[in-house]
Amino acid sequence: SKLTIGLIPADGIGKEVIPAAQQVLEAVSPNKFAFLHLDAGFELFQKTGVALPEETVEKLKSECAGALFGAVSSPSHKVAGYSSPIVALRKRMDLYANVRPVASPVGAAGKPIDMLIIRENTECLYIKSERLETLPDGTKVAWADRKITEYASKRIARMAFKMALQRGKLREAKRQQGGSVAWQGQPKVTVVHKSNVLSVSDGLFRESCLAVHKEDPSFAGVKLEEQLVDSMVYRMFREPDVFDVAVAPNLYGDIISDGAAALVGSLGVVAGANVGDNFVLGEPVHGSAPDIAGKGIANPIAAIRSAALLLEHLGLASEASRIHSAVDKVLNEQAQAMTPDLGGRGTTKGVTDAVIKLL
Amino acid sequence: SKLTIGLIPADGIGKEVIPAAQQVLEAVSPNKFAFLHLDAGFELFQKTGVALPEETVEKLKSECAGALFGAVSSPSHKVAGYSSPIVALRKRMDLYANVRPVASPVGAAGKPIDMLIIRENTECLYIKSERLETLPDGTKVAWADRKITEYASKRIARMAFKMALQRGKLREAKRQQGGSVAWQGQPKVTVVHKSNVLSVSDGLFRESCLAVHKEDPSFAGVKLEEQLVDSMVYRMFREPDVFDVAVAPNLYGDIISDGAAALVGSLGVVAGANVGDNFVLGEPVHGSAPDIAGKGIANPIAAIRSAALLLEHLGLASEASRIHSAVDKVLNEQAQAMTPDLGGRGTTKGVTDAVIKLL
Ligand SMILES: CC(C)[C@H](C(=O)O)[C@@H](O)C(=O)O
Ligand SMILES: CC(C)[C@H](C(=O)O)[C@@H](O)C(=O)O
Repeated sequence: SKLTIGLIPADGIGKEVIPAAQQVLEAVSPNKFAFLHLDAGFELFQKTGVALPEETVEKLKSECAGALFGAVSSPSHKVAGYSSPIVALRKRMDLYANVRPVASPVGAAGKPIDMLIIRENTECLYIKSERLETLPDGTKVAWADRKITEYASKRIARMAFKMALQRGKLREAKRQQGGSVAWQGQPKVTVVHKSNVLSVSDGLFRESCLAVHKEDPSFAGVKLEEQLVDSMVYRMFREPDVFDVAVAPNLYGDIISDGAAALVGSLGVVAGANVGDNFVLGEPVHGSAPDIAGKGIANPIAAIRSAALLLEHLGLASEASRIHSAVDKVLNEQAQAMTPDLGGRGTTKGVTDAVIKLL
Repeated sequence: SKLTIGLIPADGIGKEVIPAAQQVLEAVSPNKFAFLHLDAGFELFQKTGVALPEETVEKLKSECAGALFGAVSSPSHKVAGYSSPIVALRKRMDLYANVRPVASPVGAAGKPIDMLIIRENTECLYIKSERLETLPDGTKVAWADRKITEYASKRIARMAFKMALQRGKLREAKRQQGGSVAWQGQPKVTVVHKSNVLSVSDGLFRESCLAVHKEDPSFAGVKLEEQLVDSMVYRMFREPDVFDVAVAPNLYGDIISDGAAALVGSLGVVAGANVGDNFVLGEPVHGSAPDIAGKGIANPIAAIRSAALLLEHLGLASEASRIHSAVDKVLNEQAQAMTPDLGGRGTTKGVTDAVIKLL
């Protein structure tokens, strides 16, 4: 029987890159997937007053093996009743890890990058617990709660150490086949925090990561390092080649993944997956890009790679690797065919067709 | 009579770069300054149990016209009773703006950079209001409060618009003298926030900046833009040349200033000033760099430029500009004499002497 994949293009270029990813999935295994089109987004909210319909969440849970999400637009001003559907979806489905691989043979500063960013996806300032008060003098003060739990921190740390070990094994295998591998050292996890200021909350995140490192004997094979978030941004740009896996609380993870994307040339190539114990939602790191939406020039590679990440999590490793290889070939050999974000004059359709041809 | 400058080297390379800055101040105007040496830091805390002695705060307030701070070390684990003395000092002296100019004729991506980052310096997560709870299942949960006030947001926005206008005038003057100027457009302020997630707190920051833009007719000459903090890090790396002044809440300001520093080659050249209505504390953006402390190879340029920023705020514009010119010349003409962070084999003393020679 077919695997049902939910498709939630949402806003802006999401409506262009998700259909592109769908085509690639159809091509990589013609009779394997059924697709279920689901609604969410700011545009939907403007039409219906609802950003994330209950039906979407229900159908994801009851009918889909996994799903792909496009991107959401952000209103520039506060809109009563609106709240980001992707933040809500991550929480509702308990997709606690946002897994973002960032790799490039030659990145900024001419150094190779092969990083995996593991962003905690359910708490930190993203719990959106905020209050507005008016002071006696009539001016306003706003409060936001930042929540860090031992439970979520340990869970995300475990994921980071496991992924680091898995990446180590894949590199080893590649090396034995005579392949070249950017990262030479032992598997490594860099814990990103700001415990010099947030000694309690980031202190708890940090200690939870350290505790997990000790709890499982196999994790001893992973080197543990830590980096303050400000220094992390600095070092990523100067020495991107020293990082393997980075694990971070939600907001820092958001920021460093955009930073890492800049290093590989474009947000348009950086894939992500929102991962829970029972469900995976592929989602490119880029946004809805209103400035280029509807022009047919959005880079579909991030969405296509996100589809491949989804397949990996569904146990379809060989299909996933065929997609990755095709994308890599297109990126390496057809630079002129690339979309404008990569300096080319190509289109969403052109790049998608090129990938499909090489599958 | 002499102007008294407080000197707080604090930890690590602070003990090397602050004396270097002092020498430059002595040389630029031999009989103008008296220096008062004051204590603070993590090393002091380890010896005495106090990170910021009351005497230091008192003497700054009663005896000093302004001061220079070096850097503080951060303990990697939580230390009972210790809290960052620089964060405390900013708050105690109400130094509400952290002003960080980042400029380079050719930065990363081969594009010129000439940015001024204005970081709010008194609130956000830096109020350090945190709590630890134990849940019924025995695991821990930590809470941190993030505070954003209309008062502090408007105050920092005003500073940003004023600085943008002032920079515009200086550029105009330079242009008329036939000089070349990196930034070509109208003065611009980019408001950095994450109001798509923190609609109340970053919403208040954003609205306060917008309100200030309207309140003073002269601010109409400044273009107002906004950028989500994750996109800001991304765009700074891809198009650093499109930014003029950026204003940000405390933590985002911390992160983007390290990011900007990476663009100009080294944290070792990026100066800062903690500015209040009645006091200015110069402070390089770099940290205490324990890995190179005591070796005599710390780059003194950030501290020397911070001293120049202090002089500007004290009304000593011509002395400040002599220091800036000397530093620029050394950077442009004596690359081999530079410290290792800039790829040279120079020393703190060598660079300091070179600057003094060119004053
Ligand atoms: C759209 C926004 C809410 C989202 C986030 O901050 O998580 C985006 O920046 C991302 O990285 O997926
Ligand atoms: C040392 C630390 C508390 C400080 C900060 O976060 O403000 C530093 O990173 C800075 O930028 O001055």
